Amino acid sequence: MNQTETSVKIVLDRWDASIKNLDALLNNLSDATLLREIVPGKNRGIYLIGHLIAVHDDMLRLLDMGEKQYPELFEPFIKTPDNVNTPMPSITDLRKMVNEQSVYLKQKFDKLSANDWYEKHTAVTTEEFNSEPHRNKLNIIVTRTSHLQYHLGQLQLLK
Amino acid sequence: MNQTETSVKIVLDRWDASIKNLDALLNNLSDATLLREIVPGKNRGIYLIGHLIAVHDDMLRLLDMGEKQYPELFEPFIKTPDNVNTPMPSITDLRKMVNEQSVYLKQKFDKLSANDWYEKHTAVTTEEFNSEPHRNKLNIIVTRTSHLQYHLGQLQLLK
Repeated sequence: MNQTETSVKIVLDRWDASIKNLDALLNNLSDATLLREIVPGKNRGIYLIGHLIAVHDDMLRLLDMGEKQYPELFEPFIKTPDNVNTPMPSITDLRKMVNEQSVYLKQKFDKLSANDWYEKHTAVTTEEFNSEPHRNKLNIIVTRTSHLQYHLGQLQLLK
Repeated sequence: MNQTETSVKIVLDRWDASIKNLDALLNNLSDATLLREIVPGKNRGIYLIGHLIAVHDDMLRLLDMGEKQYPELFEPFIKTPDNVNTPMPSITDLRKMVNEQSVYLKQKFDKLSANDWYEKHTAVTTEEFNSEPHRNKLNIIVTRTSHLQYHLGQLQLLK
């Protein structure tokens, strides 16, 4: 295994493990619990789940892997802060999306070679990328794993 | 910049940004707030700060960078769950340690070349490392950044 392959494995392993943590945690939280605010006045569990699905859905665009699966989640879970009056999918539906999404993203990720991960993502121009080659697809996984862990720490407090 | 250098930059940039997030957050939280439980029955802010310092201190050992700076934090902040009866340093002292530690670690990290990050860390044997070359020093930064983000998400709820 060369250093490029090793780097990609380290980053994708951390993503996979974080997604497994999310799955395990959601299996331990009831629908009623997920409707609670984690701390009074802060996000509810349901919002964080929808937010994570929406942010991960946007990775498809950034990684040039095709259309979003759940574009309807952008408005309630990214554009809008948590609000009990926002129409949202049911927790049952969100749980299903989390499971489908992790399989779907894994299939997409598996198609890339180690070198492919060092290509530019779609939110950077070719000119920018030439001087900043770290703005590659691998970086998207690194920052999204970081974001996922941040919210996992919060969801964990519902247990 | 080759792919090895790019990978190391991506990982260290994420660590640096996460440490900056911690600094900014702590500057926004009063000592009184940090003495509160984030959620009733869960860790207090003071515990999470001590825990992060202790975990980051242990990176020196794992990365073969010399002795721990704050070995006295292992007992109250890693071995023991949060407990108001545990003797702990003051929040003033912990804030000072966070600042000193980030400078100290950065100095140590800066001494390594990109290739050095692909050497084995000290908690893996040479035999294990030969078959699992991803258990390298860079991986320590990836997992500790993940851990830091997890607790940053929790500390953020004190705001």
